[in-house]
Amino acid sequence: MRVRKKKNCDIRLEKSGSLWIRCPEELKGKWHSEFKNENPIHIEIGCGKGKFICEMAAKYPNINFIAIEVVKDVMVVAMEKAEPLGLSNLRFIIADAALLNEYFEKGEVERIYLNFSDPWKKKKQAKRRLTHKNFLDIYKKVLENGNYICFKTDNKALFEFSLNSFAEENFKMSEISLDLHNSGILDNVMTEYETKFSEMGMPIYRVCATYPGWEDKN
Amino acid sequence: MRVRKKKNCDIRLEKSGSLWIRCPEELKGKWHSEFKNENPIHIEIGCGKGKFICEMAAKYPNINFIAIEVVKDVMVVAMEKAEPLGLSNLRFIIADAALLNEYFEKGEVERIYLNFSDPWKKKKQAKRRLTHKNFLDIYKKVLENGNYICFKTDNKALFEFSLNSFAEENFKMSEISLDLHNSGILDNVMTEYETKFSEMGMPIYRVCATYPGWEDKN
Repeated sequence: MRVRKKKNCDIRLEKSGSLWIRCPEELKGKWHSEFKNENPIHIEIGCGKGKFICEMAAKYPNINFIAIEVVKDVMVVAMEKAEPLGLSNLRFIIADAALLNEYFEKGEVERIYLNFSDPWKKKKQAKRRLTHKNFLDIYKKVLENGNYICFKTDNKALFEFSLNSFAEENFKMSEISLDLHNSGILDNVMTEYETKFSEMGMPIYRVCATYPGWEDKN
Repeated sequence: MRVRKKKNCDIRLEKSGSLWIRCPEELKGKWHSEFKNENPIHIEIGCGKGKFICEMAAKYPNINFIAIEVVKDVMVVAMEKAEPLGLSNLRFIIADAALLNEYFEKGEVERIYLNFSDPWKKKKQAKRRLTHKNFLDIYKKVLENGNYICFKTDNKALFEFSLNSFAEENFKMSEISLDLHNSGILDNVMTEYETKFSEMGMPIYRVCATYPGWEDKN
């Protein structure tokens, strides 16, 4: 997501910063103490302006949500959206997905949401795609057998790349949709992008990819 | 494929019948004796008018090809196409895919091609789709670990159905393409449908699905 640099970003971050975890690495293995319960933890990597994660947290109070965003000028918008909602099951961290295993212990994350990630269209940029093998290897470090990644995109090329990447890394795929909004699903929470693109009549692609726990035994 | 009943179909079948195996069940486990070599055997289920299988057999003389078609009025066209080519590595059988394991021993088939199969659009017809679980179970009876199915279609809904079906049945997918003709592949042999649809600018979908041999051990 390209964003203009926000004026007074740091001041605004501080102002709506009650849900902001400044040092996520200090909570590695202890996130349940932060939420003060043992509920499962779902994370969204690249939360953008936060519509999805805020609605999910409101809809599922018995799940803890952590929104991860690398661009603080975007994260501030998401946090300002979340703040007035008073959600006790939502936190934000400014972080790089490549360092995920520095913030979470293996098994600490039950589900990863990847929504409308940057397609990084050029071939030489493939390693930056959040479904590249290198990232899947990192996700495996925080997921456990049966936990999964839920991936949505409007970008056909990125979807194709992701299907192949999941398959190659032995993720078991499910709920594959080539046109999510015409598939009769009922409980889909939409992101900002998703709302915009689906209104334009563009198909939304979705796949869930379950972590192949048997790999741990090899 | 809907076809008009051919005049004199049986006479025409007999006339160009040198490649036609009347009783395939008699060759179960003995197909190599029919071809008089130990080359791998690839089959196409639903060969239609035979363009694909004829070109494949010409292109790959060291592979034995068997074209399977349930509609004899279509098969006759394919056989008439094949006959003058004098291909020693090609045979035809009129048969139902549901009985595949009556014609082949486990491991006797190295690869199955499913090209532009009937999408059977209505939900209640799902069991007729050649990538339905019931058919995948039959394919597993003739494939061995590492052998695979290569599936192409122009039908988005059938492709989505097939991806989910392969995933559910623990096939390992690869070479997934959502637009095969714009993916830079070089050695794709086209069927009649594929030529027609791709000329119309429609995307062609492709997936390969490798048989999960580890299931045999369970």
